[in-house]
Amino acid sequence: MNFCSDNVTGAAPEILAALAAANTGALTSYGADELTLGVETKLKEIFETDLAAFPVATGTAANALSLSLLAPSWGAIYCHQDAHVAVDECGAPEFYTGGAKLVDLPGEHGKLTAAQLADVVARSGKGVVHQAQAAAISISQTTESGTVYRAEEVGAISDVARRNGLGLHMDGARFANALVFLGVSPAEITWRAGVDILSFGATKNGALAAEVVVIFDKMRAEEFAFRRKRAGHLFSKMRFLSAQLDAYLTGGLWLKNARHANAMAKRLAEGLRAMPGIKLAHPVEANEIFVDLPETAIRGLIADGFQFYRWLGDDKTLLRLVTAHDTKEADVTAFIASAKRHAAQANERVA
Amino acid sequence: MNFCSDNVTGAAPEILAALAAANTGALTSYGADELTLGVETKLKEIFETDLAAFPVATGTAANALSLSLLAPSWGAIYCHQDAHVAVDECGAPEFYTGGAKLVDLPGEHGKLTAAQLADVVARSGKGVVHQAQAAAISISQTTESGTVYRAEEVGAISDVARRNGLGLHMDGARFANALVFLGVSPAEITWRAGVDILSFGATKNGALAAEVVVIFDKMRAEEFAFRRKRAGHLFSKMRFLSAQLDAYLTGGLWLKNARHANAMAKRLAEGLRAMPGIKLAHPVEANEIFVDLPETAIRGLIADGFQFYRWLGDDKTLLRLVTAHDTKEADVTAFIASAKRHAAQANERVA
Amino acid sequence: MNFCSDNVTGAAPEILAALAAANTGALTSYGADELTLGVETKLKEIFETDLAAFPVATGTAANALSLSLLAPSWGAIYCHQDAHVAVDECGAPEFYTGGAKLVDLPGEHGKLTAAQLADVVARSGKGVVHQAQAAAISISQTTESGTVYRAEEVGAISDVARRNGLGLHMDGARFANALVFLGVSPAEITWRAGVDILSFGATKNGALAAEVVVIFDKMRAEEFAFRRKRAGHLFSKMRFLSAQLDAYLTGGLWLKNARHANAMAKRLAEGLRAMPGIKLAHPVEANEIFVDLPETAIRGLIADGFQFYRWLGDDKTLLRLVTAHDTKEADVTAFIASAKRHAAQANERVA
Amino acid sequence: MNFCSDNVTGAAPEILAALAAANTGALTSYGADELTLGVETKLKEIFETDLAAFPVATGTAANALSLSLLAPSWGAIYCHQDAHVAVDECGAPEFYTGGAKLVDLPGEHGKLTAAQLADVVARSGKGVVHQAQAAAISISQTTESGTVYRAEEVGAISDVARRNGLGLHMDGARFANALVFLGVSPAEITWRAGVDILSFGATKNGALAAEVVVIFDKMRAEEFAFRRKRAGHLFSKMRFLSAQLDAYLTGGLWLKNARHANAMAKRLAEGLRAMPGIKLAHPVEANEIFVDLPETAIRGLIADGFQFYRWLGDDKTLLRLVTAHDTKEADVTAFIASAKRHAAQANERVA
Repeated sequence: MNFCSDNVTGAAPEILAALAAANTGALTSYGADELTLGVETKLKEIFETDLAAFPVATGTAANALSLSLLAPSWGAIYCHQDAHVAVDECGAPEFYTGGAKLVDLPGEHGKLTAAQLADVVARSGKGVVHQAQAAAISISQTTESGTVYRAEEVGAISDVARRNGLGLHMDGARFANALVFLGVSPAEITWRAGVDILSFGATKNGALAAEVVVIFDKMRAEEFAFRRKRAGHLFSKMRFLSAQLDAYLTGGLWLKNARHANAMAKRLAEGLRAMPGIKLAHPVEANEIFVDLPETAIRGLIADGFQFYRWLGDDKTLLRLVTAHDTKEADVTAFIASAKRHAAQANERVA
Repeated sequence: MNFCSDNVTGAAPEILAALAAANTGALTSYGADELTLGVETKLKEIFETDLAAFPVATGTAANALSLSLLAPSWGAIYCHQDAHVAVDECGAPEFYTGGAKLVDLPGEHGKLTAAQLADVVARSGKGVVHQAQAAAISISQTTESGTVYRAEEVGAISDVARRNGLGLHMDGARFANALVFLGVSPAEITWRAGVDILSFGATKNGALAAEVVVIFDKMRAEEFAFRRKRAGHLFSKMRFLSAQLDAYLTGGLWLKNARHANAMAKRLAEGLRAMPGIKLAHPVEANEIFVDLPETAIRGLIADGFQFYRWLGDDKTLLRLVTAHDTKEADVTAFIASAKRHAAQANERVA
Repeated sequence: MNFCSDNVTGAAPEILAALAAANTGALTSYGADELTLGVETKLKEIFETDLAAFPVATGTAANALSLSLLAPSWGAIYCHQDAHVAVDECGAPEFYTGGAKLVDLPGEHGKLTAAQLADVVARSGKGVVHQAQAAAISISQTTESGTVYRAEEVGAISDVARRNGLGLHMDGARFANALVFLGVSPAEITWRAGVDILSFGATKNGALAAEVVVIFDKMRAEEFAFRRKRAGHLFSKMRFLSAQLDAYLTGGLWLKNARHANAMAKRLAEGLRAMPGIKLAHPVEANEIFVDLPETAIRGLIADGFQFYRWLGDDKTLLRLVTAHDTKEADVTAFIASAKRHAAQANERVA
Repeated sequence: MNFCSDNVTGAAPEILAALAAANTGALTSYGADELTLGVETKLKEIFETDLAAFPVATGTAANALSLSLLAPSWGAIYCHQDAHVAVDECGAPEFYTGGAKLVDLPGEHGKLTAAQLADVVARSGKGVVHQAQAAAISISQTTESGTVYRAEEVGAISDVARRNGLGLHMDGARFANALVFLGVSPAEITWRAGVDILSFGATKNGALAAEVVVIFDKMRAEEFAFRRKRAGHLFSKMRFLSAQLDAYLTGGLWLKNARHANAMAKRLAEGLRAMPGIKLAHPVEANEIFVDLPETAIRGLIADGFQFYRWLGDDKTLLRLVTAHDTKEADVTAFIASAKRHAAQANERVA
């Protein structure tokens, strides 16, 4: 009954099985194997375009390496002030870019807007040697607030990027969750909407540790191989990364898992929303719920064995609840029941 | 029949099984789990001392992060000119240290000597602002020539390090192979001999992708956690790294695997050495053999389906043959037979 | 009649003369000369304490090198959102620290407060591996708004720094201007108030190109020499940097120049403040004035040959006016007269 | 009587005078002044081509910034093992490139050869992700041995660079000395011979502290301005750098100074060569002499007040003697006489 994060989960059985299946004796190392090539082929089909795909093991590696392709060391990267790249990676983008500046911007429900970006970039001092130079925009899909950019929102942001010569990165640690919510094709929400590089996540959605950097503009891909190796992110036994991704992409497992997580979140959100006086902080569009509960309810939930994070401080009553590929419906039901029971008792006491 | 490297191998069944066993539902992420703590405990027992242990997924990450603890950006790191850190990591140590200088030194059979290091360090311009400052020594155990440093050799090198205020790093990608050759305790060849940080390898010896940085001087460990995260080498589902290491260290699997690899190498070396006119380039002390074969024999071996690297160039007849935890005795026997047959035919033609 | 900045000025005659006087034939290079040692001695007297002094040629070098002593690459540096290090150095601190994060904070009249810093640091996630680690505070004296920190303000900020293990840097590009305003001793407003490193500026106050990094905690100084050389900021003919600083510090030239600049600013401010409806944006405590003038007055001033910056955008009517060591009183008088005349005409037209 | 280096010298009177002449009141800062533009214009005339010129204050800055344009962080830079960039800049090129690898190569009389470079680059593992990627060649003109590359030698090296897609950098700290020796045009020995970027030195040849990075391929220049600012090497009062360079380039001062230095070196070399049993280690082609003298002669010279470096160690008898723009003929004569006298006495004692 752990709703802390989708990274507290184990692996999907299909992905674990794929590791065993890949354990077939000697195989060329460092990614020159059929399995790895196959992952790239599958991604080309899924995204309906040519692309370059580079598996890595963590989201931080995927994001920071991606941004290092888009921003020089004197560049500015625009992102939401809650973005994982800004606040949860201990400065990995700064490290990988050699000191580029992350410009943290506010934005409702975790989203940046094209208008806001156009304004900020216009005032950024392009060509002025004293200022970090506008280089890239990074958006999270889904966002850190559990919301999802629509294709037209991404397109508008990419227009700003194009007009100003910036690259557009999408942190898709929860890309599958966004996609099944939107019901659009992977192409539509990425390269057709102007995304240059996608951090395509699998770890949070059923892999053990696997992400893949998808580079739509192959001209930008040339240097990635060197950057990845130089950072220690090239696996010698690459097959064990690729096997995870292969299984993830096979038979729609990635979408199935995300659909389950989203469905659990929706159910949980509905249950909470039905409670008197309870409001969700953000629309629930993927697998994260932000909800303010009475302190008594929170303590009751903890006492009942539920785990989750108080958002933005241990003394806060805003909770983040995350569902995942393996969330049990019974746990969701139990959570709602527990929350209701404890909230009701609180109300009684008050009354 | 692939003798290219020990990284072309699959995983040991015990390690694969451990992944499945670790897949037990929700677990705290980022290494705050029992499995990860258990690995550190096991390492303390094995090395008979207090230490800090940080799992990562690649040897390059282990080495480069280790060196970044020992050398400032203006530091010099002394290593053998064939060392993995010097020639096979695309400059990862330079990247992680912010531009420290790797000073590549010659040395018979892949080894540095204390005398040589004392001399080089003495002439390095300590305190002179124009020169990179002597900061660390990195040795490989086993070396890139398949040889093994004796405890007294490491001790002598560490004396030089101590006297000059340098850190001592050991690249133990094949540490287990060295250990079973030496027949000493892990402590004896590491911290008791003055090693500060060990890159303790598991990938080449049966893991899927797992290494652990072992820091004997815990004062140096404090910053490692930040460096690892910042580099994207902290796994969210850490249990899947730790499970590999746990299985590796349990019941002596790591030593058993290395013993097998070494035994196969010894057998292969003996078979080759018995061939008329054939000489091995280096003593065979672990799981690597460097042998010069007639071109006709090489072509015959290739035709017979054997895989290996010509060392130092596609036109060279010096071969590197690597055995591993899963090398089949029959393959070794077949290799020797094939080599003998093709070499004999060549001799006949010559005669 | 150029009020753009104190860096548009030439050099004080005393400093130019010192260069000629230092041109006495062969002299040991790289700072091992009497003149350079003498500068350090003079600074020890002026600051009434032991210290280490490193001349460099630019304020950006002084600041970025200073911060690189105080923050590791995974560190966070707290500064005002208008600080030179944050917005005018093209990311130099990020470059020199290897990617530390500058946390830009708001603050009235260009100042940070101890309370604000205590709060921000408390919420910074100390020890949490995902967050950049609080490492240093940088304050500007005088600030980017032309105001001056009082000794007790600096002391309160340094208390926050001490309690949290942070370093405290003071960007003293206009240190002399602050000092003569405060009327305290150099010691009182720096190390006695808890400042660890001071970028002591001379360029804006009469030198050609000379600043000196003053390190009060000599333990921190050890690595500075290497960092400076490695950055290309160690002059071979160091005497020509030191001669400037020597003249600057001799006979109170630095204070005399600053007194003049401040007096001119005060006079200018009084003249403007006397204009009907005109308000200064910040207290005028040193040599900068921020004033909002009617557009017609601005155009009139430009037509009359005055130069200055519109602050924060070419369409803005907030002006920054900077006086300097060589500002002529007549120019100040003329500026006020011109402003008044054009503003009055505008009023007439309105009326 | 100081023959230690050409950086122990003072400034040429013409250059000092130019500083005073440039001290004409307010002037636009950061290089947008006529004097700075004029330097670029002069350089275009001197080099008979379009180019971009960036003044900086030190040779280390010029070299390291130049190389950062030519090599990515995963690049390899080929240079002579005695090159200033390799051994005398405390790793500045590594710092500025973010960790590129300097590959130090041997070479008679301080020179690299095209054949050697072709061979090394061919074996460098182009496209192999494990190896630093061949990116640039850096040659010194004059070399660290006081010798000078002929135009055809530079041309042959640049052919290797071109064929392999590498950039070619020339460290011209003593460019003027090489030029007057060769008697060719500046164009002939630089861009016409394939040089991409020249560190054009003035400091050692009469300036106080001034070098200029000359970029012949202007496409490469775009990012230089940001790199320079970000490194703290952009002077606010740029005129004081530019004035030095302007005077240096006016009326052939740079060539006159170099001619004098070279003439003094020639005279000194001839005097030493005439001594019985004395051999020079390298051809004397510019302003440096490497000579092995008897220990007694060395001690006698020191006793007579001469200063110089023992090359490669305090116990060595190989001396480096450097002449400069202001070397007095009488000092040269006195040096020869002193050396002869002490050497003769030594011989007598031996006899």
